[in-house]
Amino acid sequence: MNLLNNIDNPEQLRKLSSEQLPQLCSEIREYMIDNLSHNPGHFGSSMGAVEIIVALHYVFNTPRDRVVWDVGHQAYAHKLLTGRRDLFPNQRTEGGISGFPIPSESEYDTFVCGHAGNSISAALGMAIADMNTPGEENRKTIAVVGDSSISNGLAFEGLNNASNNPNNLLIILNDNDMSIDSPVGAMHRYLSDMTTSASYNRLRLKAYNLFKKWGLVNDKKKGLLLRFNNAVKSLVSAQQNIFEGLNIRYFGPFDGNDVNKLVKVLNEIKDMKGPRILHLRTTKGKGYKAAEENPQAWHAPGNFDPETGERKTTVADVPLWQEVFGKTLCQLAEKNSNIMGITAAMLSGTSMNEMMSRFPERTFDVGISEGHAVTFAGGLAAAGKKPFVAIYSSFLQRGFDNIIHDVSIQGLPVVFCIDRAGLVGEDGVTHHGLFDLAYLKMIPGMSISSPMDIASLRGLLKTAEGMKTPMAIRYPRGRADGAVNNNLFPELPVGKGRIVYQSDNSKIAILTIGPVGNDAVKAAEDLIKSGVSVDVYDMIWLKPMDEELLNEISNKYEAIVTIEDGTIEGGFGSAVMEWLSEHNHNIIVKRLGVPDKWITHAKVEQLHARCGFDIMGITDAVRQLYREIPAINNFDITSK
Amino acid sequence: MNLLNNIDNPEQLRKLSSEQLPQLCSEIREYMIDNLSHNPGHFGSSMGAVEIIVALHYVFNTPRDRVVWDVGHQAYAHKLLTGRRDLFPNQRTEGGISGFPIPSESEYDTFVCGHAGNSISAALGMAIADMNTPGEENRKTIAVVGDSSISNGLAFEGLNNASNNPNNLLIILNDNDMSIDSPVGAMHRYLSDMTTSASYNRLRLKAYNLFKKWGLVNDKKKGLLLRFNNAVKSLVSAQQNIFEGLNIRYFGPFDGNDVNKLVKVLNEIKDMKGPRILHLRTTKGKGYKAAEENPQAWHAPGNFDPETGERKTTVADVPLWQEVFGKTLCQLAEKNSNIMGITAAMLSGTSMNEMMSRFPERTFDVGISEGHAVTFAGGLAAAGKKPFVAIYSSFLQRGFDNIIHDVSIQGLPVVFCIDRAGLVGEDGVTHHGLFDLAYLKMIPGMSISSPMDIASLRGLLKTAEGMKTPMAIRYPRGRADGAVNNNLFPELPVGKGRIVYQSDNSKIAILTIGPVGNDAVKAAEDLIKSGVSVDVYDMIWLKPMDEELLNEISNKYEAIVTIEDGTIEGGFGSAVMEWLSEHNHNIIVKRLGVPDKWITHAKVEQLHARCGFDIMGITDAVRQLYREIPAINNFDITSK
Repeated sequence: MNLLNNIDNPEQLRKLSSEQLPQLCSEIREYMIDNLSHNPGHFGSSMGAVEIIVALHYVFNTPRDRVVWDVGHQAYAHKLLTGRRDLFPNQRTEGGISGFPIPSESEYDTFVCGHAGNSISAALGMAIADMNTPGEENRKTIAVVGDSSISNGLAFEGLNNASNNPNNLLIILNDNDMSIDSPVGAMHRYLSDMTTSASYNRLRLKAYNLFKKWGLVNDKKKGLLLRFNNAVKSLVSAQQNIFEGLNIRYFGPFDGNDVNKLVKVLNEIKDMKGPRILHLRTTKGKGYKAAEENPQAWHAPGNFDPETGERKTTVADVPLWQEVFGKTLCQLAEKNSNIMGITAAMLSGTSMNEMMSRFPERTFDVGISEGHAVTFAGGLAAAGKKPFVAIYSSFLQRGFDNIIHDVSIQGLPVVFCIDRAGLVGEDGVTHHGLFDLAYLKMIPGMSISSPMDIASLRGLLKTAEGMKTPMAIRYPRGRADGAVNNNLFPELPVGKGRIVYQSDNSKIAILTIGPVGNDAVKAAEDLIKSGVSVDVYDMIWLKPMDEELLNEISNKYEAIVTIEDGTIEGGFGSAVMEWLSEHNHNIIVKRLGVPDKWITHAKVEQLHARCGFDIMGITDAVRQLYREIPAINNFDITSK
Repeated sequence: MNLLNNIDNPEQLRKLSSEQLPQLCSEIREYMIDNLSHNPGHFGSSMGAVEIIVALHYVFNTPRDRVVWDVGHQAYAHKLLTGRRDLFPNQRTEGGISGFPIPSESEYDTFVCGHAGNSISAALGMAIADMNTPGEENRKTIAVVGDSSISNGLAFEGLNNASNNPNNLLIILNDNDMSIDSPVGAMHRYLSDMTTSASYNRLRLKAYNLFKKWGLVNDKKKGLLLRFNNAVKSLVSAQQNIFEGLNIRYFGPFDGNDVNKLVKVLNEIKDMKGPRILHLRTTKGKGYKAAEENPQAWHAPGNFDPETGERKTTVADVPLWQEVFGKTLCQLAEKNSNIMGITAAMLSGTSMNEMMSRFPERTFDVGISEGHAVTFAGGLAAAGKKPFVAIYSSFLQRGFDNIIHDVSIQGLPVVFCIDRAGLVGEDGVTHHGLFDLAYLKMIPGMSISSPMDIASLRGLLKTAEGMKTPMAIRYPRGRADGAVNNNLFPELPVGKGRIVYQSDNSKIAILTIGPVGNDAVKAAEDLIKSGVSVDVYDMIWLKPMDEELLNEISNKYEAIVTIEDGTIEGGFGSAVMEWLSEHNHNIIVKRLGVPDKWITHAKVEQLHARCGFDIMGITDAVRQLYREIPAINNFDITSK
């Protein structure tokens, strides 16, 4: 009998006997392996978290009790158990369910969870809200956070504040990195056995009284600063018991892949008062041998053969944008010992790994700490180094103030290599990099560029090497455009654009920044077939803008179309428009880009179409504009 | 003999005998008391940090050795000892030195330090840069961080990374909050005595070996994740020695106001290898009785009588903007138990303190954790509460991603009450709130408003109470405009502007947002005397913009002037321009606001003048535009 097929909600799960749970976990794993082998997603973490998810829905009264996921791509089993089993095969596709829990999709999804480290803060808000709502005081909130996420500053701020106000938050630390190779010593076993026992509570009281006698704790000590001071002093000095310092009770570590043990522990601690941490060890990829053995490769493995575990990687002759970056940076670093590489838990994702293996002393993976990555780079630059910081666009939002305060005010020559800029596709609304052009544009002294092809990215990196002030280079996810030439470093002077497509008698100029320029050229080629000629300019720089070229363009054409793979609110198109207005050019401007809406997941091409700047969207926009140009269409025949 | 008067640089300080240092510290205090009593600044923290500063410059070879301050308003003594004694009386005034260390001012100022928590990350960058630079390996870097700053997530990320790479960073924890009332127990004394001793090192080794035997540490364990896992596990489980976990050696606590002891300790540890934390206890306001007794009031006391300690507070009949906010929020909270107040270490600065004293269970001061404040509010809202988050504009930059990811994607009804928005005056470049309009404008679904007067602020707060989606209200530092009426809650419908000054035959419309509208009205009154009539519109909302009104305006006038107390790059003026272009209105637009430059300190009025949007700046701009309007001036007389 198949259990999973008969569970349409957690209510039904809770009718199973606890003896049936291991079978259910196996079925969930089989279902995931089967599905993810041909509809790729996040495999390893989801396989590891099956028992935690089953146990949580089994013990707690979801959706009334709230589970808050941190980086929700671990939570596929949660989707399968909350009425989305039949929708799972279409996850991450246009019109299908999201790869992450998201409140708009289900009442079981309590909070957006695409950026790491937010679960404790959000769950604390919910827990405290309930304590302040008559009739809701016994509602429960559980944050599930991974051991990488908890290194984020936001998670620390959440932990720090969790101890400050009365609340019954349960924090589950899903620790899947240590479990592979760490020895479980005598002390571990001792602690894990004693934590829920009466003898532990006696010990805790005894320790408290002892510290009190020593004058280290004191019943009158209340309030945020004090509690935190205690915590920090514990952290730096080990002067007192950390439980008392943070005021968070600790349980564990337990085997997080033993579902019956989990149910038992959760039942024991679920009604306890006050904030608690439950430390669970899980195995990434659990239940699938290939993934257990090579967890990094199986984080998001793409298509694979479920029987053999063979990953169906396709060999492309065109490199990824990130690979062009990674290789070029190494070439520059070979000759310039001042170059430093920094990333924030995106070593392979940004292709900073070649730099790490060749120049380990000059390459830094700082973990999920984007703010620190930026400020640290500021420090390196202040001491004469040339740091290249490679971070995904949407995660770099975490470093916005750091870019302003710790780099730009002092004009430090940090280079921001912004990967995954623009629409990213399947990862969806939390992962699109739509804001970088707009949020960098407002920062005085920041130079902002985006390459249309491989040669330009290489040229911009070379230009960046020589910059004495902050500079950003943004490029998208996916395959790069243009020919590969690993020796070419074309001169790319700051603030200079170029024409990339020219035809006779064009009345309209298309101005683009970044790889979307390639689609503009294709659109121009299509348009000329229908008798509409347009010229295409690759502006390369948003700031400083090529004013000479802009001036020429605004004198030459009747209308301008701007295209950018980013929000049209305050981005590239706005910059063009601001310049034109500032210089009293009355020329029609049509801005294409991502509209002022949240964009859900689908393939990148589908999203470009949805936003109206795929090739056909561009031709449509130009043809419509063409019909509206007064100089062509508005001459008054009657008066002649 | 006066020592201070003969010290023009730390080189000269280092020629003193250590016996002379206490006298120097006294002289510095006298100098500061004398000066700050009539040129106000940050008093308490600067008085407490005198000995730390003297000892650092005495022991270390500044400026070659680098001291990085965290929230640099503690560092006045540093300015006095580094060639700026005679400039000190003009600090924080136009053309005078800054109230914060700032690299553009002195080679002794190593990094910008207006936003808390950045020192460890920046200093780590410098320390690691030096280790990678031949000949610089022995250069020293010291971060000086306060006990409030270290609660910030960025500081934690810095600490976490300080343990990961080889470096010789010295972190000084200047702990001035505990020192007033905390008992120094037996364990404290024991630790502080043993930390620099050989017996301590033996103990450390012994502990390490013991943990190794237990299988808790292991020589092969290297790398970031592992180190951090150790640290977190120490944090949550106290399973192992925290020194080993974080890999940062700890010294202290010592009396940070005992200059000779400090010199001795610093000399002992300065050449040690590896990252170290030195924990110092200091007294805020040290050496000035009134300040020691009431450190909060004396943080930035304003003018005072140096003899009596009497603070010269002026009683104004017009409230501050923040006070209007604080009082109105309480009035709303009286009747609506769902309202929650959140701030981040700005309880009195945002006037959230009345809410805290009247509704303590619904008011949260989360410490210097702006990111957490926003995400926590998101959690509260997700659970049905109505959170009002009051944070200064420039500090809210720290919560940019949280506003996007943890509030706006889910459309949660959090209200952002953005205080100190616009130019703030004396605190200077790091504290101006210039970016909020622009960085909020790009976020889908965010409503953005700013009141021109007291009644509008009250009305907007009332509107905010009923909003089902995110909303921002920005208002500046200083005295509010308009009549006080604590009963009035004028209807302020979302996205509706209003005309506030009208005259006959106006060819030009001034569109403003926020209190700068009052100056626009005064400018209009002045202009009409010179025969130029303009109308003034208070748009109130940047988003959604009043499109009906905009349409009316663009049909009625020949030109538009927009004014905003914020960057003109992508703010209010850009929004007006984008709308006009989108709707094919060819109308001249002149944008006034803060230009795309870093703005240093001066009085607010001086800065408005410098940026060209004080009353005279506005009249100038209008008159110039008036001369350029084609419909008025460009008619061709010859052809008639």
